[in-house]
This record gives sequence, structure tokens and C-alpha cells, in this order.
Amino acid sequence: MVERGGTTMPARDVRVALLGYGYWGPNLARNLHLRLGVEWAACVDPDPARLAEVAHRYPWVRTCRDAEEVLADGAIDALVIASPARTHADLAARALRAGKHVLVEKPLALSTADAVALAEQADASGLVLMVGHTFEYNPAVAKMRALLRSGDLGELYYLHSQRVNLGRIQRDINALWSIGPHDVSIANHLVGAAPRWVAARGARYLHTDVEDVVFATLGYDDGVLAHLHVSWLDPSKLRRTTVVGSRRMVVFDDLDSEAKLRVYDKGADPVGVGEFGEYQFRLRAGDLHVPRTDLTEPLALELDHFLECVATGARPRTDGWNGVRVVATLEAAQQSLDKGGQQVAVPADWDRDGDGAAA
Amino acid sequence: MVERGGTTMPARDVRVALLGYGYWGPNLARNLHLRLGVEWAACVDPDPARLAEVAHRYPWVRTCRDAEEVLADGAIDALVIASPARTHADLAARALRAGKHVLVEKPLALSTADAVALAEQADASGLVLMVGHTFEYNPAVAKMRALLRSGDLGELYYLHSQRVNLGRIQRDINALWSIGPHDVSIANHLVGAAPRWVAARGARYLHTDVEDVVFATLGYDDGVLAHLHVSWLDPSKLRRTTVVGSRRMVVFDDLDSEAKLRVYDKGADPVGVGEFGEYQFRLRAGDLHVPRTDLTEPLALELDHFLECVATGARPRTDGWNGVRVVATLEAAQQSLDKGGQQVAVPADWDRDGDGAAA
Amino acid sequence: MVERGGTTMPARDVRVALLGYGYWGPNLARNLHLRLGVEWAACVDPDPARLAEVAHRYPWVRTCRDAEEVLADGAIDALVIASPARTHADLAARALRAGKHVLVEKPLALSTADAVALAEQADASGLVLMVGHTFEYNPAVAKMRALLRSGDLGELYYLHSQRVNLGRIQRDINALWSIGPHDVSIANHLVGAAPRWVAARGARYLHTDVEDVVFATLGYDDGVLAHLHVSWLDPSKLRRTTVVGSRRMVVFDDLDSEAKLRVYDKGADPVGVGEFGEYQFRLRAGDLHVPRTDLTEPLALELDHFLECVATGARPRTDGWNGVRVVATLEAAQQSLDKGGQQVAVPADWDRDGDGAAA
Amino acid sequence: MVERGGTTMPARDVRVALLGYGYWGPNLARNLHLRLGVEWAACVDPDPARLAEVAHRYPWVRTCRDAEEVLADGAIDALVIASPARTHADLAARALRAGKHVLVEKPLALSTADAVALAEQADASGLVLMVGHTFEYNPAVAKMRALLRSGDLGELYYLHSQRVNLGRIQRDINALWSIGPHDVSIANHLVGAAPRWVAARGARYLHTDVEDVVFATLGYDDGVLAHLHVSWLDPSKLRRTTVVGSRRMVVFDDLDSEAKLRVYDKGADPVGVGEFGEYQFRLRAGDLHVPRTDLTEPLALELDHFLECVATGARPRTDGWNGVRVVATLEAAQQSLDKGGQQVAVPADWDRDGDGAAA
Repeated sequence: MVERGGTTMPARDVRVALLGYGYWGPNLARNLHLRLGVEWAACVDPDPARLAEVAHRYPWVRTCRDAEEVLADGAIDALVIASPARTHADLAARALRAGKHVLVEKPLALSTADAVALAEQADASGLVLMVGHTFEYNPAVAKMRALLRSGDLGELYYLHSQRVNLGRIQRDINALWSIGPHDVSIANHLVGAAPRWVAARGARYLHTDVEDVVFATLGYDDGVLAHLHVSWLDPSKLRRTTVVGSRRMVVFDDLDSEAKLRVYDKGADPVGVGEFGEYQFRLRAGDLHVPRTDLTEPLALELDHFLECVATGARPRTDGWNGVRVVATLEAAQQSLDKGGQQVAVPADWDRDGDGAAA
Repeated sequence: MVERGGTTMPARDVRVALLGYGYWGPNLARNLHLRLGVEWAACVDPDPARLAEVAHRYPWVRTCRDAEEVLADGAIDALVIASPARTHADLAARALRAGKHVLVEKPLALSTADAVALAEQADASGLVLMVGHTFEYNPAVAKMRALLRSGDLGELYYLHSQRVNLGRIQRDINALWSIGPHDVSIANHLVGAAPRWVAARGARYLHTDVEDVVFATLGYDDGVLAHLHVSWLDPSKLRRTTVVGSRRMVVFDDLDSEAKLRVYDKGADPVGVGEFGEYQFRLRAGDLHVPRTDLTEPLALELDHFLECVATGARPRTDGWNGVRVVATLEAAQQSLDKGGQQVAVPADWDRDGDGAAA
Repeated sequence: MVERGGTTMPARDVRVALLGYGYWGPNLARNLHLRLGVEWAACVDPDPARLAEVAHRYPWVRTCRDAEEVLADGAIDALVIASPARTHADLAARALRAGKHVLVEKPLALSTADAVALAEQADASGLVLMVGHTFEYNPAVAKMRALLRSGDLGELYYLHSQRVNLGRIQRDINALWSIGPHDVSIANHLVGAAPRWVAARGARYLHTDVEDVVFATLGYDDGVLAHLHVSWLDPSKLRRTTVVGSRRMVVFDDLDSEAKLRVYDKGADPVGVGEFGEYQFRLRAGDLHVPRTDLTEPLALELDHFLECVATGARPRTDGWNGVRVVATLEAAQQSLDKGGQQVAVPADWDRDGDGAAA
Repeated sequence: MVERGGTTMPARDVRVALLGYGYWGPNLARNLHLRLGVEWAACVDPDPARLAEVAHRYPWVRTCRDAEEVLADGAIDALVIASPARTHADLAARALRAGKHVLVEKPLALSTADAVALAEQADASGLVLMVGHTFEYNPAVAKMRALLRSGDLGELYYLHSQRVNLGRIQRDINALWSIGPHDVSIANHLVGAAPRWVAARGARYLHTDVEDVVFATLGYDDGVLAHLHVSWLDPSKLRRTTVVGSRRMVVFDDLDSEAKLRVYDKGADPVGVGEFGEYQFRLRAGDLHVPRTDLTEPLALELDHFLECVATGARPRTDGWNGVRVVATLEAAQQSLDKGGQQVAVPADWDRDGDGAAA
């Protein structure tokens, strides 16, 4: 519980406003505070009680109930948007229009069309638009990706993840849109592309129109599958992603403080050809390796990246098009949910620039 | 590693032959030995090396390569069939025809038609036909079922399971038929019926025609879902079933020696009605309880049950019709796999007697 | 990582200064900030770099390098002392002399004589002197104590603890004085008294005059033993206390987020008398129960208690005499270390008031 | 639960009798059966019920109540002694006198004098005398020892172990003699010698004359310490040994099926000299490595070694003198227990041949 002693100063001062001090906002606030000090200048929330909390904790921060106030403030360079998901697209568009750099929490939007419009708007404006896909800044995920890219894992077969817990039941978006962006973002990031198709099934127990639990399968090129299980109605807190390659297999357990990443030297190696011409396999189960990973809070790394992009004009790793790929995947999954699990294609024609991150 | 001191003697002597001393056979042999001593009379396997191993370990056991020899032996009362899955139906039918009681490893058959025929044949013969659905003899599963039946868990919402590992890659059946019977049997047993429909997706990596990993969703009455994840190409050994009820939630982790069963006093309780007429919920996270469960090896309990049924003429809890319900579920899952994940109905017209076990 | 939304306001405003912003100070600062806002008025540290860090994070806090400045400031009501252990006694004495209430980190002093002098000084002054024995504010420890007091655990047999890790190697105090105060404080708190004697052995690997690892046995009345293992040279982070009673046994694992406290219905029950007149025992291994415990950070509860005592004049639960009992135990352990493990009595004549905490 | 398929045949047939079919005997029986088949010829136990159990399980084995019967049987080559500890020395001496090779369970004897006499008797007789220190045949322990010998761990600092559980409460020997031989044997094996001194403290709760829990410190040459905690009155089953070296640290957790051995690239590295001439240290926490270890049951490896020694005349790795070193350590620990924890020297003059195992 000891906090990091050092303070990272951005290349030049950036004055930031935070929009939304609800569930996730306080985490952003804490990190903005540590990074920016008094340059974290303003906070917007419609709830006076939340603003009073901000005023108590961060007495120098200007609090206001209306986003318009900070959008109109020429002294504010950038907005961090942590408002409810349904407001992301509109707030981000208005912020870009007002000439502000934007870091928006996931999902970037609730429709692919909105997400594409935002990505195009950002490209046209020359402003930074970054999506808060925190796990793409997680050192353990970066290590997994590096193991894949280097060929250490061999050929990628499939991955599966469980992100379940009892908690944060939502009313206006289902578990897919609430929890799923993390897993879709991780899967896309590891594979280096959006999936070609999605199939999803879920179930509604608490409300008649909101899925509490969703199982989704994402089909990528070359037969690579990703399977997601998200739920806010589960007894155990699990945050686990397993990546199965032909040479090695990796488990990323975000809750395991000693062994966040387990790299298994395991596999089924072809050893010959059977009497009917098929391959025969021998199991290999060697050592288990737990590479040390940087324990810096990924959210801190994400904010550092955003501030650096703002300062230098660089394109963020999780830019608008990255956000589009996640939203398009979720939208296809939602359509599959609505059609009882039928396989739905993920459109790709918006992806004119390819996956910069995968390059 | 200390073995059970006591020996359970069956009500009357039953002379048994074991068919198949391959992967699972040695476990049956060990238990037959402890239960029956020299009344475990014969063992059949086509492989002389396996028979030599039997002769070494159990010098009193008659070994033979052809099942016909024990089928024709009037001194043999019962057969335990642990041969490859594709041979189950034929061997069981021949055994019943020869007037032997039969315990057959799961799956009972590879088609519903074969399974129904066997169940009918057993009913007509008056002989015991029991399927080796071991988990239905597992004290932890029995405890879960009791918690459900008593209402302690509240309304059943859904369950999900993972049974994955690196190992026992098969050539003639896929992971669904190899590993899935356990989870289908557990789910059917807990719900008390077969599902109405199944949808399954999988992937083939090692061979072009055998799924190494399968994800399946089983739809039961009243919106109850069961989701299975089976794989023989996974780094971690997991054998975990989670049952989510409205009042309590249970995790059964067969590999956790201290806490096989975790009963969570957790849930989302309705606390009122919101402005749009929908229920509102409050999270409840109370104590966690680990009921003590009998640690007797489930296979030993299963064999005891079989021997008792043979001795008393009672119908086994996992009778032929129970086996039919599992096979019909797997068959529908296979059809769904073949149709790219499309939802497939599980036929129910063979189920003339209802689920005796659920009564 | 979501922070507590609510802010606890003390009964009346108390202006506080923090002395020491080194290893532990930032945790106190974070909590002072949340509790007091701008009433956390000043911070003292000899290191300008640390003060710059404070100024960045908490811009309203007055920073100064000399404690004298805040001691002389009539507007400061209370001091929180988190300076190096060797300075505790002197700073606390000066603070009381200056009329300030004092919360001092453990250990209260490095000698029993100093600790007694402080406790007497506080009693004479009417000011609050509280020692930061955090674990006595830990809800899980409180629950263990309640289980003991209620008789649920039966007769207390013994307890043992491991508090080991690689880290925070110190130069001026050994592992006993650095880590041991936690375990001594927990043991005294559970038993309700100081031990009668102590024996300790340790070893020095990094420096020739500082023990990196210490094993200590504390002998309480009625044959109750507590065994401590502390080390800053160990691969695994362990923070575990086991309490063995005649009826039940408890494990407190501070690092287990799901099951911090495990209450085992286990024991060896007398079942008769053997042929030589001795008792015979039957093992009992029943359910395991994990009571829900409040997850509030113990340090927050500790600070709340201090602020309330300051506001109301109440005697803190971990008052100076409580601190004396811990220091006297550590001093005896140190003497035992110096004498090669010989048993050393813990003096008790200073304990004129009995164990207030145990009442 | 799948048993090993293969059967190891000893170099030449050895006919073996087992003495004692109580707590541990069945494990030896199971392995004798797998290794020797019908060459496991006889079993002795005074309890007719235990003999009946043997007759049921192993119908070819001759059962008898008196050891004299097998001692006098010229067709028996070797005895495996698993009788109560107090009978070990006498039975082993009689067996050697009768010209039999002997594998005796630990402890070899209850006094150093008896142990030395046995070792000398074996040396004089030319017969194999081996002590069942199972952990010296455990592949994970062998790996730890190899890491130490190769210098991978750097300089050995200390080791500590916990072997606690609720269970196997004994009446005629305390927890030190019942459980401690394992840890003493492991420690001696890793260090490569017996300790110079021992200090032990314990407590008696169930009986007035038998320690249920013992804490012991073993002092080896070069300041190496080993600390043992053994108890049969503890809620958690722990079997854990931690070895701390200057370069790496290892945890051996015998109950962790996936990571029995964890090798931590951790340490405190000297980085310079401080202002007072003392070393300064920097913490290093690198990767964690879990080397694959052979999962063969150590008892099987132990028996194989015994049978091979009998067949070839080789001196077993855990010969009589190895047993002497363990007994001498335990005897010193017992004397320390009796003297209230006082440090007691371990005599070394019997060790005329040096530590063959350490060579």
C-alpha cells in the first residue's frame, strides 16, 4: 500500500479536466493528481455530492456540473472522459470540436458508426484522441504480446478469458459492453487485428433486458479463436486470460501478485505419422517460468502515454481506430446476442489504415 | 497417500470381469481389487503387454485378449467396460445379451439411438446397466445438488465449468466426447433434466478432424444455462464448476484439497423499484462456507453402488436412461459443432420415464 | 483500486502535523488527506526531496525540515510521528511537552524505560498518546479476538506467525524491532496480556551486527505460547498468523483477499481414558468458515480512532501502556538474542494498570 | 489417480517381508506389490485384523504375527521395517543378525547409541542397512541440493520448514520424533552434514508428557541455520521448506502440484560501502522459475534404491550413518526440549567416516 515515491512530470504542462467522478473517475483523479498536481484543473460531474468529495480531496480543482464550462475554457488543453458509456461519443465529439485533446474511457462509443465518426474527426482535427484500453498499457499484456511476436509461443492457437465477479451491475449497458471491452481489447491487441466474426450468447436474470452474463467467441484469421466469459453475477473474482500457442502457453492472472504471468513450456509436439497418414503427438511439459513484470499501475502508464502524446503530438497506441475495432467487435457480438447466438461478421471496410498497433 | 484401511464387502459375492486395461482401466482394477479381492476374476485387453501388467499386479486374475471368453463364462456375473468409447455400445449389448450385469464407462454410446437401444435392452432384460458417470457419485456434487434442492441457493440461474488440461489427446473422439460427458452429467444431475437445446463451437489444431477445444452452451427449462469449456490443449489443469443461484453461489473445485466446495453467501437482492419500473438491486457479500465433504474416492462409491445394485437388483442412479440423456446432449452438441455453432434441439421423446434421479 | 467514496469527518476539526515522510509516511499522508483535507496542515522531514514531493501532492500543506517549527505552532493540535524508530521516544516526549496529542508509529521506543516514561508523561499531561499498532485496528484481528473471548475457539493453546519478505532491510534496527512489533502486538492483543518470558534466536547475514531473521518464542500465562518468525530476507511474502484453540483453529492470512480469516472446526477431542490413565483423543475435522470481515484499510480505522480520542479525550485502545508492553517484550527478546537464545523474563512491575485493552 | 503403467523389475529377485502394517505399512505394501509382485512374500503384524486386510488385498502374501517367523525363514532376503518407532532398533538388529538386508523406517532408533550400534553392525555384516528418509529420494529435494551444490543459490544463509497438520497424534513419541526426522533429514542432506548444536522448545497440550508442537533451531557450520516447526495440532496442512541463499532462494512446497519447487531470482546485493564502512545493499527481484521435477512417488524411488543396493551390494545413500546423524540431531533436540530450550551440542565423534552423502 506504499505509494510510488517518484512523480513523473510531463514534457510540458498540460491542463486537464476530468469529466465524471463516479465509479472509475476517482482512479483517474488519483493519478491525475500524482502526475499533474495543480495542472489537474477542473472536474465535471452532475452530482453535487460527488463534486463536494472532489473539493474535499483536491481543494485546488475547479468543480462544475456542466461540461460546457470546461469545453469553453481556453485554458484547458485536454479532457479525460469517465462519464457513463452512453455519453462517451457525444462528449468526445464536443471536446474535439472545442479543440481539446481527449482521453475517453472504454468503450469509445456504443455504435461503430459513432466510433468511426470520432476517429475521423480526430484525424481531421490533428488532436489526440485516445481510448482508455488500460490493458494495452499493462506490462504483463505487453510481455505476452512480445512472446507472441518473437515466436516464443509458436503458432497462436487460441485464447480464452474470464472476467467475472459479483458487482457493478449496470442498468443501461449489459455485461458485454461493461466488462467485455477489456477482453476484446486484449484479444485484438494480442492477435494484432479485429476478428472476422463473433458469436455470443448470454442470459438475463436480474433485469429482463440486460445480460448479466455473456459468453462470446471471436473468430480471427488463420483459425485463431478467442473465447470470453464476462459476468457481474459470479461468486469468484477472476481476471484471467490464457493464451495457447503451439510451443508455449501463457496464463495471465491479474489477481496473482506473485505470478501474474505464467509461461508454460508445454505443448503437443508432432512426432511422426500414424498408419492413416495423420500426425502423431507427444506431450511436452517442461519448466514453468514467471517473468518479472513491471508492477506500475497500468492506469498510470496509460495516463503518462496520453500526456506524452498531447505534449509531442504523437498518435496514441490506443487511438480512435483502435477504439473502432473494439466497438465494431462488441457491436457484432451484440447483434449475435440479439439473434440467439448466430455468427455475425465484423465489418472491416472502415479499417482503411490497418492496425497501426500490429505493425 | 495412505490407503483406506477398511474393505467393503458386497452383500453377496459377485464375480466380475474388467474389459479394458488402458487409460482408465487401472483405476477400476485398483478398486475392484480392494472391493472384491479374488472375486475380481478376469481381465480382457487386446494388448498382451497390458495383460502382462495385470498378471504381475493381480496374479489371481485370469487374463484374456478376447471378450468372448468372459461373455461365455457362466461364472462371471458382471462386466465393467473400460474399452475405447467407440466399442462401448456393442460390448454392453453383447454383455447384456449374455446375461451379465454391466457397468460401462462414459459415454454409454456414441449415438442416441444406440444409447436408447441399450437402455431398452437393459429394461427388458432385468439386468443392471449402469453408466460410469463418476461425478454423480462425488460427495461434493451430491452436496451441491442438496443445496439446490433444499432451496439454499435460491433460484438456479446458471452454471459454468472448465475441465481443461494438457493431456490425453485422442484420435477417434474429440474433446467434447472425451471430456464433456463429465460436465454434461454434472449439469443434468444438478438441474434434474436434460437440456432443451445445445450450441457448441470448437477448434481443431492438432488434427484436421478432431476438436481439441470445445465451448458449449446448454439451454435448460426456465432459462437455466450451463456453459462448458473442455480442452486437452491448455496449460493449467482446471476442474471447476460454478453454480450461480439467486441466494447463494457455489464453486466446486475438484483440485482444491482444502476447499473442494465453496458456498458463497452472495447475491444481488432486489431492494425496490426504480423510476422506470424496473427492479433495483443491492449486492450482498457475506460469509464463505466450506462444508466438509466425504473424501472417499468417487470411483469407489460408484463401484460400491454398482455392486449393491447387482446384489439387490436395484436400479442404479446412473442407469441407461441417465446415460441416454448425456449422449443425446452430446449428440446435439456435435451437430451444433458440425453446423458452425447453430442451436440444436435435444430430442426428448425417448425420455418416457422422466428423470428418476431428479425425483 | 477504487478508493472509498465516503469521507469521515472528525467530531471537531483537529489540525495535524505529520513528522516523517519516508517509508510509511506517505500512507499516513494519504489517509490524513482523506480524513482531514486542509486540516492536515504541516509535514516535517529533513530531506528536501521528500518535502518537494509533499508540496507537489498536497499543495496546501506547510512543509518544514525542523520539528521544532510545528512543536512551537500553537495552531497544531496533534502530531503523527513516522520518523525513524530511534527518534520516536524523543519526538513523542517533546510533542507531549509542547501540549500536542501524539500518534507515534511502532515501536513506541527502543527501551522499556523510555516507553514507561512516555506513558507516564502522557498520563500526567492529560494528552492523548497512541501507538500505531495497526493490527489492533484490523477487523480480522478483532474478529479473532472476539472468537477467543466468546469461547468459540475453546481454550487457547498457542499461536504462531510468519511475517517475512524480501525487503525493507534496515541498518539501525534489526528485523525483530522492525517487523516484530506487529506480531508481538497481535499476540499480546489476542492473549490480553504481555508474555512472562521470551526466547529468541536470529542470524545476521548482510551486516555483522543486525539480525536479518529472528525466531522468537513468547511464553504467556497458562502455558500459552506464541512463536514469531520475522525476516526481511525471504523469497515469499507471508503475513500469516495461526491461532490454535482446543475447539477451533483460525488462520489469518492478510494477503488472501477472499479468505483473510479461516475458522476451522477442527480439534482433537478427548474421548476416554486409556489403559495407563491418560486421555485418548479423536480427531475432528468439520467445516471451514470464512467470516466476512470489514475490508476498510486498518490504517484508516486507526487514524479515525486517534482523531476521535483527540476530539473526545478518550484513552486510545493502543495507549502508551499498550506500547510499553510491546516494547518490554521486544527488549526481552533482544536480550535473549544477545545471550544466544536464553530465556529472558519480561518485567511486569510497570504494568500497574493491568491490561486495559483486555478488560 | 492413474497408476504408473510400467513395472520396474529388480536386477535379481529379492524376497522381501514387511514388518508392520499400521499407518505407513500400506504404502510400503502397495509399492512392494508393484515392484516385486509375488516376491513380496510375507507380512508381520501383531494385529489379526491388519493381517486379514493384507490377506484380502494380497492373497499370495504369507501373514504372521511374530517377526521371529520371517527372521528364521531362509528364503527371505530382506526386511522392510515399518513397526512403531520404539521397536526399530531391536528389530533391525535382530534382522541383521539373521543375515537379512534391512530397510527401516525413520527414525532409525530412539537413541544415538542404538543408532551407532546398528550402523556398526551393518558395516561389520556386509549387509545393506538403509533408513527410510523418503525426502532424500524426492526429486524436488534432489533438485534443491543440486542448485546448492552448483552454486546457483550462492552462499547458503538459512533454511526453515513447516510440517504441520491436524493428525496422527501419537502417544509414545512426540511431534519432534514423529514428524521431525523428515525435516532434519532434509536439512542435513542439503547442508551436507549434521548440525553442531540444536535448541528446541515445544508445548504439550493433549498429554502432559508428549509435545504436540516443537520449534527447533539447528546450527550448522559457517553460521547456517535451519529452523523447524513441526506440529500435529494445526489447522492447515503445510509441508514447506524454504532455502535462502545469497543469490537465489527456493521454496519447496510438497503440496503444490503445479509448482513444487519455486526458484526465486531474488536477493540483496552489496552495492557499495556506506559512510560508516558497512556494506550497502540493493534488492533484486527477478524472475521466478519452476523447474519441472520428476513426479514419481519418492517412496517408489526409495524402494527401487533399496532393492538395487540389495542386488548389487552397493551402500545405500541413506545408510546407517546417515540415520545416525538424524538420530543424534533429534536426541540433542530432545535434550534441549527437556532443558527448556537450552542449546545442546550434537556429538560428532561417532562420525568417523565423514558424510558420505555430502562428498
